[in-house]
Amino acid sequence: MKSNLLSNIYNPADLRLLKEEQLIQVALELRQFIIDVVSVKEGHLGASLGVVELTIALHYVFNTPQDLLVWDVGHQAYGHKILTERRENFHTNRQLGGVSGFPKRAESVYDTFGVGHSSTSISAALGMAIASKLKGDFDKEHIAVIGDASIASGMAFEGLNHAGVTDANILVILNDNAIGIDPSVGALKKYLTAVKNGKNPKQNNIIKSLNFDYSGPIDGHDIPTLIKELNRLKKIKGPKFLHIVTTKGKGLQQAEENQVKYHAPGKFDASTGEIHLKSEENLPPKFQDVFGLTLLDLARKNEKIIGITPAMPSGSSLKFMMDEFPERAFDVGIAEQHAVTLAAGMATQGMIVYCNIYSTFLQRAYDQVIHDVALQNLPVIFCLDRAGLVGEDGATHHGVFDIAYLHTIPNLILYAPINEIALQNILYTVQSEILEHPIAIRYPRGRGVLPKWKTENYGNYEKIVIGKANCLKSGTKKAVLSTGAIGNNVIAALKEAGNPETIAHYDFPFIKPLDNDLLNNILTLFDHIITIEDGAKIGGFGSAVADYAAANNFAKRIEILGIPDTFIEHGTVIEQQHFCKIDVKSLANLFSEIEK
Amino acid sequence: MKSNLLSNIYNPADLRLLKEEQLIQVALELRQFIIDVVSVKEGHLGASLGVVELTIALHYVFNTPQDLLVWDVGHQAYGHKILTERRENFHTNRQLGGVSGFPKRAESVYDTFGVGHSSTSISAALGMAIASKLKGDFDKEHIAVIGDASIASGMAFEGLNHAGVTDANILVILNDNAIGIDPSVGALKKYLTAVKNGKNPKQNNIIKSLNFDYSGPIDGHDIPTLIKELNRLKKIKGPKFLHIVTTKGKGLQQAEENQVKYHAPGKFDASTGEIHLKSEENLPPKFQDVFGLTLLDLARKNEKIIGITPAMPSGSSLKFMMDEFPERAFDVGIAEQHAVTLAAGMATQGMIVYCNIYSTFLQRAYDQVIHDVALQNLPVIFCLDRAGLVGEDGATHHGVFDIAYLHTIPNLILYAPINEIALQNILYTVQSEILEHPIAIRYPRGRGVLPKWKTENYGNYEKIVIGKANCLKSGTKKAVLSTGAIGNNVIAALKEAGNPETIAHYDFPFIKPLDNDLLNNILTLFDHIITIEDGAKIGGFGSAVADYAAANNFAKRIEILGIPDTFIEHGTVIEQQHFCKIDVKSLANLFSEIEK
Repeated sequence: MKSNLLSNIYNPADLRLLKEEQLIQVALELRQFIIDVVSVKEGHLGASLGVVELTIALHYVFNTPQDLLVWDVGHQAYGHKILTERRENFHTNRQLGGVSGFPKRAESVYDTFGVGHSSTSISAALGMAIASKLKGDFDKEHIAVIGDASIASGMAFEGLNHAGVTDANILVILNDNAIGIDPSVGALKKYLTAVKNGKNPKQNNIIKSLNFDYSGPIDGHDIPTLIKELNRLKKIKGPKFLHIVTTKGKGLQQAEENQVKYHAPGKFDASTGEIHLKSEENLPPKFQDVFGLTLLDLARKNEKIIGITPAMPSGSSLKFMMDEFPERAFDVGIAEQHAVTLAAGMATQGMIVYCNIYSTFLQRAYDQVIHDVALQNLPVIFCLDRAGLVGEDGATHHGVFDIAYLHTIPNLILYAPINEIALQNILYTVQSEILEHPIAIRYPRGRGVLPKWKTENYGNYEKIVIGKANCLKSGTKKAVLSTGAIGNNVIAALKEAGNPETIAHYDFPFIKPLDNDLLNNILTLFDHIITIEDGAKIGGFGSAVADYAAANNFAKRIEILGIPDTFIEHGTVIEQQHFCKIDVKSLANLFSEIEK
Repeated sequence: MKSNLLSNIYNPADLRLLKEEQLIQVALELRQFIIDVVSVKEGHLGASLGVVELTIALHYVFNTPQDLLVWDVGHQAYGHKILTERRENFHTNRQLGGVSGFPKRAESVYDTFGVGHSSTSISAALGMAIASKLKGDFDKEHIAVIGDASIASGMAFEGLNHAGVTDANILVILNDNAIGIDPSVGALKKYLTAVKNGKNPKQNNIIKSLNFDYSGPIDGHDIPTLIKELNRLKKIKGPKFLHIVTTKGKGLQQAEENQVKYHAPGKFDASTGEIHLKSEENLPPKFQDVFGLTLLDLARKNEKIIGITPAMPSGSSLKFMMDEFPERAFDVGIAEQHAVTLAAGMATQGMIVYCNIYSTFLQRAYDQVIHDVALQNLPVIFCLDRAGLVGEDGATHHGVFDIAYLHTIPNLILYAPINEIALQNILYTVQSEILEHPIAIRYPRGRGVLPKWKTENYGNYEKIVIGKANCLKSGTKKAVLSTGAIGNNVIAALKEAGNPETIAHYDFPFIKPLDNDLLNNILTLFDHIITIEDGAKIGGFGSAVADYAAANNFAKRIEILGIPDTFIEHGTVIEQQHFCKIDVKSLANLFSEIEK
C-alpha cells in the first residue's frame, strides 16, 4: 500500500482533515484492516465490507458524534468502530471484555443506540430527531442506516409511517444489497429490484408515497457520488430517504461470490479468502442440523408438515427442507410476528407447522404466540434455536428469557431436550398424532454431545411421553434437577466430582407441564434441591419448582442456578456460563462442596 | 319496516336465497338490529354499522364458511355474527357465557380465526390460503377485512409483503374509514386519503408495488357495486386487494358525527342516538384520567416530559396532554413496537418519556422493551393501562401476563399502585429526578376507589421511595401480601370478615425490586402467607415471594392467589375475579375461614 492514512485516523475529526480524493485510499486501507482482523479473530465480515465507502462518507460529511448515526442490526458497523476511536482495540472484537460485535452505547459516544435485533434504527433515530427539535436544535442530523432485509420488517414500516408525517431531521439510508444473512425475500424486495433495474419510474415510489424526500438509487461504493448526495441532503430539513446500492462482501472476491457463507465465515486466509476448514470428523452435530435434518426426514413421510423461518434458512437449517420441499417450507423474511400468525392460520386448516425462530427473536412475536396460537390452543410447534447463552454475539442475542415469558402462557407445552436424541424424538412425537396444544422446544446454539451421531440416525425415533421427567443418576441426600442441554454440564461435573453417592440427578425436559409425580417424590426424599437451567432465574424452571414446593407445603432448601438478573456480556459460552456459575467447573466445585 | 327479511336468515345460506335487490332491505334491518341490541346491551357500535353492506355482500357472494373470512380486530363483526347463526343469542353479547364481543373459533365455524388485537388478519388468511393450496383446494377464497388503522401496523405490512410473492388465493379488503378507535394517523393514512380524493393516479400505488391485484377505491355502502366487484374478484386467482370507503357509524347520525364517542357508546336511545349519561357525581375517577391529568400537570412544569400512545389517545387519556402540548404528545398509530423504540431514542437525548400502552398490547413490543430499553437501561416510563382483568372484552384483552413477562427483565422496575394517590405519586416521582432505570407502572381498567378525588388533587404530590412496601393492617398470625389495586379487594374483604386480629395486610406496590427487608420480617413473623395479585400466578408476584422464601430458607406456607393457568372468558370484572377467587366475597370467605 502506498500510504498509511488509516493509522493516523483516531476519530472522524481526523478523517475530516483529509482531502476528498484521499478517501478512496482510506477505503482500501479500512477494508484491508477489517479483512486482516476478521480473518484471524472471526466475526461478521460481509456486511461491513459492503459499507466501507458509506461509513467513510457519513463520518466525512456529517459532524459525528453531534450528528447522530444509528446502524440497524450493527453487523455492518466494524468500519464505523475502527474509525471512531476503536481501531487499536478492534482485535478484541467479540471477546470477553473486548469491543462488542455490535454498536453499544456504553462503549462509545459514537454508538448512539445499541443494536443487534433488526429494524429498530428508524424508530430510534426518529426519537432522537424529535428530541433535538424539542431542545431547539434544528440543524442536527439523525441518520438511520438500514438494509433491505431489515426495512421489510414491520417495525421499520411503523417507523417510516410515523417519520413521514413529522418535520424531524431524519435521514434514512437504505443499504440495498438484496441480502440479509440469507437472500432477501418478499414483495418489497421484488419492488426494490425493479427500482434498481429502472423498471419503476421514480414518481411511482413507495417511499415517496410515505411522504419522504426520496433520492437514489445511487452506487454505494462511489465515494464522490455519496459525498455529493449526502452534502445535498444535509441541507434539506425533514424526513429524507437515500437509496444506495451496494455489494455485500465488496472487495473480497470470495465474499462477494458466496455472500451467505461470508456473512460470518470464521477464520480465513486474508489474501485468498479461503476459509480455514476445521475437521468435523467425530464432532457432535449442531442442534440446528438435528432439527433441520429430522424435519426433512419427517416431512418426507408426512405431507401435512410445514416449516417456517423468519429470515434464518441457513442459521436454523430449515434450508434442508426448503431445498427439497420449497412449496412447504417458507422463509418469510425478518417478520417474526407474521411468521407466528401465518403458522396459526395454517394450523387452523390441519397443517402441522414447525415454526423455527431463535429464542431471542421470538420476543418479537410474543403477542402472536399468546393471542393467535395459545389462546386458540392451536398445535403450532415452535422450535427455538439459540436458547440459553449464545456466546460472542452477547447481550442482545441470548435466548434466556424464553422460559419465563412462555411458561406463564396457558395451553403451551415447554420442552428442552438434553441432547440430539431427545430433540429428534420430540420433533417426531409432536407430529405422530395431532398434538392437543402448542409446544415450544428450546435448544441451544452450537453442537450437541453425541460424537458418533451420523446421518443414518435420522429416522430412528422413539415417542416421548408428554410431561415425563427422568432420573439420570440416583443419590441419597441431594437432588440436582436440570432442564435441557445444560444437564450435560451436570453430568460432566458429577463425573469430575467423582460421581458422589449422595447426589441424584434428574432431567426435566418438560418445564411445562412439570412432572409433578416425580417432583413430589423428589421433594419427599431429598432435603436439598438444586435446580439448573440456562435461562433467567426469575420466572424460570427453578422458580416453577419452588412454586410447586411452596404450594404443596414442602419445607425444603431449594437452590436455583441459572442466569442472574442482569444482562450477560459477550464472551465465550463457557465464560458466560462461568459468570453464571453453571459451567462444568463451578458445578463440580459445588458438588464437591456439598458432598463434604 | 315493510318486510322482515332478517328474521328469516339463520345463516348465509338463507341470505343467498334472496334476490340481490332485497339486500338493501336486509341492510336496513341488520343495521337496526345492531342499534337496538347495542343501545340496550352496550358494546362496540360504530365499526359494525360501517360494514353492514360489506358484511352482507361478502356472505352473499362467497360460500362461507367454506370460503374463509377473517375479520381484523373484530369490533366490526356484529353483523357477521347476526347473519351466522347467532342472531337469537346476540343479546347475550359480551356477557358471561354469552356471545363473545369478538370472532372466536370456539363459538362458530364462521369465525375462522379468533381476533381482538389488530393486524393479524392478513397473516392468518394467508396461512389458510397456503394450506388450502397444499391440500389441493385451488378454488377456495380467503378473505381478510382490515381497517386503515390496522393496516398501518407493522405486522400487516409483513403479511402483505409475504402475500405479494405467493400465488395464494387471498383477498385483502381495506375498509377505509379514516378512523380506528381514534382517528387514523401516519403517512399511509395521508396517502390513502390522497388516493380517495383522486390525487394519486392508480398506477402510483403502494399496494400494486407490493404485487397485489389492486382495485378501488369503491363505495363500501353501495351493495350492487360491492357485489359486482366481489364477483369479479372471485374469479381472479392469487393475491388481490380491494379498497373500499366506508363511514364509521353509518346510518346513525350521531354515531357518524361523533365517531370516537360512538365506537363503544354504552347505553343510548336507539331512535335518537342520545347517550344515556350516568351521573358521575361522587364516583372515583378512572385510573386512565388520573394518569392523563397528572401527566398534563407534570408536563406543564417539566418541559422534558413527552407522552406517547399507540392509537389510544382517548382510551389512555393522553388526549389531555395532546390537546395542550401537541408537539410533546404523540399518537403513533397502532405501532407498539415503534412506540417503545421511539421512546428509547428520545430517552437517549435526556427526554422523560411516558409511554402509555395497554398491558395486553405491550405484548406486541416485548422485544423492544428488553432490547431497546432495558438492555440500555434507558429510563423510559411505561404506563400500562388495563392491567389485570378487563371484563367484557374478554380473553384477548386481559392484562394478566405483564408481571411475569416484565419481572424477568433485568434493570426494569415494576410498580402497581393501590389507588389514585399512589398512581399520581409514582408518576410524579419518576420525573422529579432522572430515574436510574426504566419502570413499568401497571394499573387497572376502570375507576379507582377514592370518591372525593377532584381535579384540584392533581398537583398535590408526594415522592415515593423506590422499592418500599407498606403495612396497611397489622395482625398476629397470618399475612396477606397484595400488589396493586386488587389490594382494595383485600381491604374490603377484611372489613367484611370483621377485620380479624390475626390477619395482617401488606401492600407491595413494587413487584421489582421487592422490599426484601419487610419481606424478611414478614416471613420471620408469620407462618402462613397469602399473596394476591390480578395477574397470572405463574411467574407473578406470589411466585417472586415464594422464590425469595425458598432462596432464604424460610419454610413457610405460601398460598398464591391470582389468575390461574387458563385464559379467562368474557364477563364482568367481578365475575372474572370470582372465577379466580380474588373477588371481595371469595376473599372474605377465605379470611373468615382461616380466622377460625
